[in-house]
Amino acid sequence: MGTDTRTLVQQLLKGNRRAAARLMTLAETMSPKAHAAIKQIYEYTGKAHIIGVTGPPGSGKSTLVDKLINEFRKQKKRVGVVAIDPSSPFTGGALLGDRIRMNRFATDLGVFIRSMGSRGSLGGLAWATHDVVRILDVLGKDIIIVETVGAGQSEVDIIKLAETVVLLTVPGLGDDIQTIKAGIMEIGDIFVINKADLDGADRRYVELQAALNLGERQQSWDPPILKTIASSGEGVEELVTAIQAHHTHLMESGEIQQNLERRCSAQLETIVEHSFIRKLFVQTEEREYFLHLVRKVSAREIDPYTAAELLILRLVQPSKVGESS
Amino acid sequence: MGTDTRTLVQQLLKGNRRAAARLMTLAETMSPKAHAAIKQIYEYTGKAHIIGVTGPPGSGKSTLVDKLINEFRKQKKRVGVVAIDPSSPFTGGALLGDRIRMNRFATDLGVFIRSMGSRGSLGGLAWATHDVVRILDVLGKDIIIVETVGAGQSEVDIIKLAETVVLLTVPGLGDDIQTIKAGIMEIGDIFVINKADLDGADRRYVELQAALNLGERQQSWDPPILKTIASSGEGVEELVTAIQAHHTHLMESGEIQQNLERRCSAQLETIVEHSFIRKLFVQTEEREYFLHLVRKVSAREIDPYTAAELLILRLVQPSKVGESS
Repeated sequence: MGTDTRTLVQQLLKGNRRAAARLMTLAETMSPKAHAAIKQIYEYTGKAHIIGVTGPPGSGKSTLVDKLINEFRKQKKRVGVVAIDPSSPFTGGALLGDRIRMNRFATDLGVFIRSMGSRGSLGGLAWATHDVVRILDVLGKDIIIVETVGAGQSEVDIIKLAETVVLLTVPGLGDDIQTIKAGIMEIGDIFVINKADLDGADRRYVELQAALNLGERQQSWDPPILKTIASSGEGVEELVTAIQAHHTHLMESGEIQQNLERRCSAQLETIVEHSFIRKLFVQTEEREYFLHLVRKVSAREIDPYTAAELLILRLVQPSKVGESS
Repeated sequence: MGTDTRTLVQQLLKGNRRAAARLMTLAETMSPKAHAAIKQIYEYTGKAHIIGVTGPPGSGKSTLVDKLINEFRKQKKRVGVVAIDPSSPFTGGALLGDRIRMNRFATDLGVFIRSMGSRGSLGGLAWATHDVVRILDVLGKDIIIVETVGAGQSEVDIIKLAETVVLLTVPGLGDDIQTIKAGIMEIGDIFVINKADLDGADRRYVELQAALNLGERQQSWDPPILKTIASSGEGVEELVTAIQAHHTHLMESGEIQQNLERRCSAQLETIVEHSFIRKLFVQTEEREYFLHLVRKVSAREIDPYTAAELLILRLVQPSKVGESS
């Protein structure tokens, strides 16, 4: 309605925040307009350093990210943040916490914070997140921080998105087997023990070190383990130094290119997957056939693999499959 | 090698545990043999009550599940367990903890425990898990417990798999905003505060109650909040009673049918998605074209949406797309 995509893109390229926000909303709803916009801006992407900050609920991610923003702002870097909020698959809804932090930086035009939920996304959150990162990139952000709960298991796989992954842990969450079980040691480029003033921080340090030694890391980067107290800002400057050292390492070693290809590959996979599934839900006729098959599978009249074969055949060659099954 | 699928299926139908285990291994590798087997056994599925137990790392899931097994065994129910282990996306590897528990029930033929990791699954863990549950069902388990970390965000979405979802929390993990932020209130049929002897259990109870009142639940079931101490077994009997009450409710209200259709729909989606993506990685020619496009996207010569369109066109109609792009 009103402003068309091309105009929004022109405005975005001039650094217009409202145009960026509108394009992000389009991206979140996986609108074809958003994809048209991404096609137009794609060549201007690739300038920002994309940092993932991930950790369990309660590990202080939001607080740490706020402090990181402050620190990068001191260096005059422009900062974009994508806060991924695993909101309810059913009700959705905005969150008090995110509102509060967005207000905190509301007057600083060098900061753009976007909160994203999984509502109504049909598994498309990963997809939309990539697009939002691209929009922030083109908006001229030097640093883009993607904040997400958990790692590896999350719908938004942070290693598919970020160049530098900061993995947060806090003392006293689970025991050592659980730490290893979380199975996320290999994806961290920098490990942070937040709330390092709590009991058990030293023990956690030793556990992390042991777990890092267990893992088979193929890269030349030796991930540091840092301690922070995000609430007071302690250790945040050191974290920024480590983040920038990792970026320098990526550039100098040429790993930034491998990293880019890995991310492009993952993104392409995601788009292909979702394009296919979207077809099921967008086209009425396909949707009806899908539901017809679901009922047959529910009734155990056919098995799900046969149903999937019929469905794929139908999607691929609409004329060849009748209504007979 | 050796035993063919049909033989394995025959043995499975007779309750042969080794055949079950071998079929599960095939399922984990997403072998076409596994799918052939599922086609043969699908009509015999649907007898077990599938229970999801989910919660953050360190919430005591494994211990609680062990106690649930004991309790169900007292009632002479046959129990299958699928422990989903979010192991490293890079190294994989079996875990000490799972080995220990499997040994604990090794002599009880009424119990079958299968541990599953995400290694090498190319996003197919969800798919394989459904198949493993089916195999346990046909093996004659009355109760199948699927134990998984996190909910909603996890690759294996527990509501797509389980009829009754038990959501675990522990006192002191994060604050109240985080609890709501976890956004998983609506998927729980039964809420359990484990480690209820820890400080903050009462506060957590009040928080959960408040969060439950916030949510818009459309179903007629009023989810109870229970307290357990899994390590001592306290509260586990009450939990089993609640689980069985929920099952009765599903049967009497007819919601079991909606539930089934929802799950079949999700499963069908998953299979269609993964079949499509698998094609990319199994067929050499397609794989090469995929990598070719990845390089072009990395170099920003084309954008990922255009690349996805080219790829889909190629997968769908191999003859129509040349090597020109």
